[in-house]
Amino acid sequence: MTRFPAVEAFRGGDGLIRVVGHRGARGILPENTLIGFEFAMSTGAHLLEFDVVMTADVVPVITHNHRLHAPTFRDDSGNFLTDEPKVSDVTWEQLQSFDVGRVDVSSAYGRRFPDQARLDGLRVPRLVELLERVKQPRFDAANLMLEIKSDPDFAHDQAYRKTLVSRVVAEIRAAGMQERTLLHSFDWNLLAECQDQAPDFPTSFLTQLPDNDDEVGEDSSKSISPDFSGREHQIPSLVAEAGGSLWCPYVNDVTAETVADAHNLGLVVAVWTVNEPEDIDRMIDFNVDAIVSDYPGRVQGRLEARGYSWT
Amino acid sequence: MTRFPAVEAFRGGDGLIRVVGHRGARGILPENTLIGFEFAMSTGAHLLEFDVVMTADVVPVITHNHRLHAPTFRDDSGNFLTDEPKVSDVTWEQLQSFDVGRVDVSSAYGRRFPDQARLDGLRVPRLVELLERVKQPRFDAANLMLEIKSDPDFAHDQAYRKTLVSRVVAEIRAAGMQERTLLHSFDWNLLAECQDQAPDFPTSFLTQLPDNDDEVGEDSSKSISPDFSGREHQIPSLVAEAGGSLWCPYVNDVTAETVADAHNLGLVVAVWTVNEPEDIDRMIDFNVDAIVSDYPGRVQGRLEARGYSWT
Repeated sequence: MTRFPAVEAFRGGDGLIRVVGHRGARGILPENTLIGFEFAMSTGAHLLEFDVVMTADVVPVITHNHRLHAPTFRDDSGNFLTDEPKVSDVTWEQLQSFDVGRVDVSSAYGRRFPDQARLDGLRVPRLVELLERVKQPRFDAANLMLEIKSDPDFAHDQAYRKTLVSRVVAEIRAAGMQERTLLHSFDWNLLAECQDQAPDFPTSFLTQLPDNDDEVGEDSSKSISPDFSGREHQIPSLVAEAGGSLWCPYVNDVTAETVADAHNLGLVVAVWTVNEPEDIDRMIDFNVDAIVSDYPGRVQGRLEARGYSWT
Repeated sequence: MTRFPAVEAFRGGDGLIRVVGHRGARGILPENTLIGFEFAMSTGAHLLEFDVVMTADVVPVITHNHRLHAPTFRDDSGNFLTDEPKVSDVTWEQLQSFDVGRVDVSSAYGRRFPDQARLDGLRVPRLVELLERVKQPRFDAANLMLEIKSDPDFAHDQAYRKTLVSRVVAEIRAAGMQERTLLHSFDWNLLAECQDQAPDFPTSFLTQLPDNDDEVGEDSSKSISPDFSGREHQIPSLVAEAGGSLWCPYVNDVTAETVADAHNLGLVVAVWTVNEPEDIDRMIDFNVDAIVSDYPGRVQGRLEARGYSWT
C-alpha cells in the first residue's frame, strides 16, 4: 500500500490520537470560516475538516450544504435567509453578499452551538483562500480533510462531477498542497473519480448507517452513499477494496471490532462528529486514529486526562 | 458625577448589555494569556477583565493568584508545579521559565474548564505586553477592567501598596490607555489609593458576600474586602460613597433590587463570573450593564436570543 504523507498525518499510534477540527472549530467559531480554521490550527488542531461545493461560475467554495444555509447565512440587511438558493445557482460574487458570521440562535441548528462566537462581516471562503492560509510557515503541521460535497441533483451528470473534481484538484496542486490533502466524501463513486483523475491523492471514505438520524439542520448524505444493508460489518473491507486510505464512520456506527478490522486492513479510522465527553472517551477506548470534533479543545482535554497526546 | 469614557464603555442601555471576557476567554483559551485576550477581542468581547500582580523586581504581570498557580503553571520539564512560590518572590525573568498554556485536567480547577484549548510555550504576560496589543487600531473598541490583586501579606505595607498602584498607573499612562482602563479591586482601601494617585481613572468595586463559596482553585478575596455584615443591601450606596463608578458583584449576590439601587446611584453594574445559561438569563432579567464571563460567545448567544446587542 502506498504511504501518503497526508494519511500518516491522520494516523494514530501508541498513546497518540489525532484531533481534527470539524469545519474549523464549529463549537467555538462560525463553521467553515477562515477565522475558525485559524483558531483550530492555532490551538493545536492542525488537521482541518471542511466542505467544498462549486458555485455557478465553477469556483470551489467552503460551505457545507448544497443550498445557502438559512440558519447561518444573513443577507445584506442582516436577516437570516428565509429561502435557500442553491450554491450551484449563484456566482462567487453573489455569494460574497452573504454574511456567515453568526448562527441563528432561534433555529434548531443554532441551538446545537450555544457557545459559538457571533461575528459580522464573514464571507464564504474560496478553497484557494484557505489553501493560501495553511501554506504559511506557522501552519506547517496543517493537513486537510477536504470533503467534496456530492450534489444529488448532479449525481448522474458525469461532466459536472468531473469538473468538480478537476477544479478542486487543480487548486490544491496550484497551492502545492497535494501532499497535505485527503480527498474525502460520502460519494464513493466520486472518490473513484478522484482516484482516476488524481491517483497521487489519498481518498477518505465517509459512512453513516441509515438507521442513525441525520444531524439537525444539515444536508443528509445518505442518498449519495452506497447502500450497506446487510453488510454493515464489512464496511472496512469495502473501503479497502475501493482503494481508500481512511475510513470515516459516524460516531454512533463504529465499534471496537470494526475499528480493529479497519486497522488490520491498514486503514486509518477518523470518526465524526464527536462532541460529547462520553463519546470522546468511547472513541479513545476503541483506539481510533483520529477524532473529528466541533470542540477540539475538549478532545485535547480528554486525551490528556487519559494520557494521550495528539501530535 | 464625572463621565469617564471607560465607564461608558461598560454601561448598558436599552437593548444593550455588554460582554466582558473574563481573563480573556477562560472557557476557551488559557486564562490571562495574550492569545486569550486576542481571541476575546477578535470575537466581539472588546471589554477585557484580567488580573495584575507585581513580581519581586516590581514588574506588573498578568496572573490571577498571588502564588504561581499549580494547576496552570508548568515547569521547564513540562510538569505542573507541586509547590507554589509567591509571584512577589520571583523575578520577571524567573517567571518566564513557566508555561501557562494548559490547565491540569486532573485538578479540581482544571475540571471546571473542559473545553479549554491546550497550548505550549505560553508565558505570563507583562501588563505592558497587553497594553501594546490593545493599542493596535483593530482593537480600538477594547477597554480594560484591570483588577489589581491585593496581597493580604502586604495589606499593611503602605509603601508596597503605593508602589503597586503607581507602577500600574504609570504603565497605563505610558501606553496612552488612561481613558480606556478601569482600576478594579476587591480591596476598597487600595481603590482609595488609586483615587488619590490617579483621580482621572475610574474605579470599579468588586464584592462577594462571605456566605458564598469561593471559586475552586482560586485565591479568595474575602480577607481583603470590607465586611458587609448587616449591610448587604447597602453595598451600592457604599460603592457610590467611596467614589466608585462601577459595582461588580458576584453573580450569586445580586438581585434585581440591588441592580436598580445601583442604577439610581448612577453606578454601572458588571456581574462576575456568569457562565451558566440560566445565570446569564437571570442577569439579563436583572438589567445589569455588563456580564463578565469565561464564555463570551455563550453570553452573546443568550443576548441575541433575547433581542439584545452587546455593542
